[in-house]
Amino acid sequence: MKIVSYSIREDEMPALKNWEKAHPDVEVQVESELLTPESAAKAQGADGVVVYQQKPYTRETLQALHDAGINKMSLRNVGTDNIDMDAAKELGFQITNVPVYSPNAIAEHTIWLMGRLLRREPEYTAKIAKRDLRWAPEIGREMRMQTVGVVGTGHIGRVVIDILKGFGAKVVCYDVYQNDQLKAEGLYVDSLEELYQQADIITLHVPSLKENIHMINDDTIAQMKDGVIIVNAARGDLIDTDALIRGLDSGKIKAAGLDVYEKEVGVFNEDWEGKQFPDERLDNLLNRKNVIVTPHTAFYTETAVKNMVEISHNCNVQLIKGEKADNTVELG
Amino acid sequence: MKIVSYSIREDEMPALKNWEKAHPDVEVQVESELLTPESAAKAQGADGVVVYQQKPYTRETLQALHDAGINKMSLRNVGTDNIDMDAAKELGFQITNVPVYSPNAIAEHTIWLMGRLLRREPEYTAKIAKRDLRWAPEIGREMRMQTVGVVGTGHIGRVVIDILKGFGAKVVCYDVYQNDQLKAEGLYVDSLEELYQQADIITLHVPSLKENIHMINDDTIAQMKDGVIIVNAARGDLIDTDALIRGLDSGKIKAAGLDVYEKEVGVFNEDWEGKQFPDERLDNLLNRKNVIVTPHTAFYTETAVKNMVEISHNCNVQLIKGEKADNTVELG
Ligand SMILES: NC(=O)c1ccc[n+]([C@@H]2O[C@H](COP(=O)([O-])OP(=O)(O)OC[C@H]3O[C@@H](n4cnc5c(N)ncnc54)[C@H](O)[C@@H]3O)[C@@H](O)[C@H]2O)c1
Ligand SMILES: NC(=O)c1ccc[n+]([C@@H]2O[C@H](COP(=O)([O-])OP(=O)(O)OC[C@H]3O[C@@H](n4cnc5c(N)ncnc54)[C@H](O)[C@@H]3O)[C@@H](O)[C@H]2O)c1
Repeated sequence: MKIVSYSIREDEMPALKNWEKAHPDVEVQVESELLTPESAAKAQGADGVVVYQQKPYTRETLQALHDAGINKMSLRNVGTDNIDMDAAKELGFQITNVPVYSPNAIAEHTIWLMGRLLRREPEYTAKIAKRDLRWAPEIGREMRMQTVGVVGTGHIGRVVIDILKGFGAKVVCYDVYQNDQLKAEGLYVDSLEELYQQADIITLHVPSLKENIHMINDDTIAQMKDGVIIVNAARGDLIDTDALIRGLDSGKIKAAGLDVYEKEVGVFNEDWEGKQFPDERLDNLLNRKNVIVTPHTAFYTETAVKNMVEISHNCNVQLIKGEKADNTVELG
Repeated sequence: MKIVSYSIREDEMPALKNWEKAHPDVEVQVESELLTPESAAKAQGADGVVVYQQKPYTRETLQALHDAGINKMSLRNVGTDNIDMDAAKELGFQITNVPVYSPNAIAEHTIWLMGRLLRREPEYTAKIAKRDLRWAPEIGREMRMQTVGVVGTGHIGRVVIDILKGFGAKVVCYDVYQNDQLKAEGLYVDSLEELYQQADIITLHVPSLKENIHMINDDTIAQMKDGVIIVNAARGDLIDTDALIRGLDSGKIKAAGLDVYEKEVGVFNEDWEGKQFPDERLDNLLNRKNVIVTPHTAFYTETAVKNMVEISHNCNVQLIKGEKADNTVELG
């Protein structure tokens, strides 16, 4: 059995080597290249491919894979937006993804963003870099004194809540589907408006369904406490960035922690040093001492990467063996 | 009743104003100056003073206070090392301090240091500042995968443990006196050596008693896991800084988070921008991307400052009224 694994990064190699050791019956051909119409030919003679890229999986690319005799493709990530689903269906593809690889990676990152903002870390980091070692006046705040509003109590939101409880913070949460245990603990409020009114910190853990796009906007910001902190490690389009900036400018929003951004595709995960930075609004956010932007790195932990590598290769083997794969993607 | 409060900072004012409102019978005279032989005269006619400074309370200073008719002095902090105890005793002083103002302030800061190191935040911050938004290769690690060794399970260590449990981290701890609850949970190991052998992260929460000075040294570092992370928000002299630097140089120690430093007095809480930095060894640490130094700011939260202001003024009132004060300092 042979799998070609495309665009494998240096940091994925330890996990991949471990997986190979545990699967001596599978030959893995590692390619550092992305999957393109050209590189697809490299899969000739293999039984399946494992992939991960932001670049589209176009009809052309899928056709080239098909021509190389491959129709079993396993993503190492969740997102399937960049797949031409019609082409995949027509060409008889079977596709798997990794819907849950480590909720803790994202939940912990969310908490670190909160902590850094509560303790005004960017201001201290700048002071300390120029050897100003005075502590005043950047006084910090304690997590245990905060009321944290958790929007979405799925895989990630629930881990966030567990961590917050350890700090002794007060948690209020909201979800369209309520989790039984959290309900029994009395943590749910009945509406987002109620959550916005009570929370000192608001953190988003919902998908970007149509009804959630720009859920944080001028109107909902107006419902929030003065000096609210907003954290988003879910999806960029949940926040109307212009409204966020207006809120930061007026002081209504004290601080923000963002691992995602509305227009992040093509900007995040690129090196802009010495180049014209392509997004003025993002630059505005990056220059603020009360805003922390991380370039979609919440997921990026050794544990998550290990799970992404292992689960995707396991799924590919399942497809090749004709078994029911753990995480089959519905083709439209 | 009249209290003179020396070296009150801007950030203490909100708490002080609140306290005054709740104590209309007490007149508080606010002084931004430190207490010195000269400024002591300003206390003439008052009943007590509230103070907080790193500068010594010398015989001269205490004599000047005595001459102004004052012998009731309440510290807004814990430390009493800088008081001439012989003079205080001879001059009939009654002194109080604030031994516990917010263990959570220090415990949370400790956790933030761990999180920033686990997620390699200083490296990302430097990359992002120059607009390099690539996430690889600075892969992070998750707290829940770590074994954390907590040295000292007093007020602060216990809060650290509570928070770590929320993350799902494995905790091992050591104390010369064992806490019953932690004992029942089976978290104690029998020796520091055992803790050093098991821990991925080691965090110190013991006082700098003689037997603890340089407890982290070449020998104990050799007992630790390769790639250990060391965090110290307790006292600088618990760590032999030269040994720490050797460990960082060799890679034995992967990272360190330090809120305290052996020779911090006279260096921390000063502005060295544009001046000759006075400590080469500290500069060495400050320049490393795998070391985070914060200038003794762990305590510096709104809650802690509020407690320091309120408890010290309450104690001073108790002294003035001739009551038994909550936190009397033994004068040697
Ligand atoms: N930053 C990153 O690196 C990263 C990585 C993985 C996932 N994510 C994002 O995190 C988010 C949450 O992921 P998850 O695994 O917890 O998802 P999940 O499906 O387990 O949970 C989402 C929850 O949101 C609820 N929900 C949907 N719309 C809602 C609304 N309007 N109000 C309240 N609740 C609503 C759902 O009922 C569900 O319980 C997703 O958007 C995901 O894309 C980000
Ligand atoms: N960074 C800051 O801003 C800051 C602020 C306040 C306190 N601190 C420091 O934090 C430390 C802990 O404070 P706390 O309030 O938790 O103190 P605490 O007295 O409540 O607890 C200290 C614990 O350490 C134990 N201990 C002493 N020597 C030990 C040893 N060799 N091995 C194992 N255990 C030992 C004691 O039995 C005690 O349980 C102190 O050094 C204090 O000075 C730092």
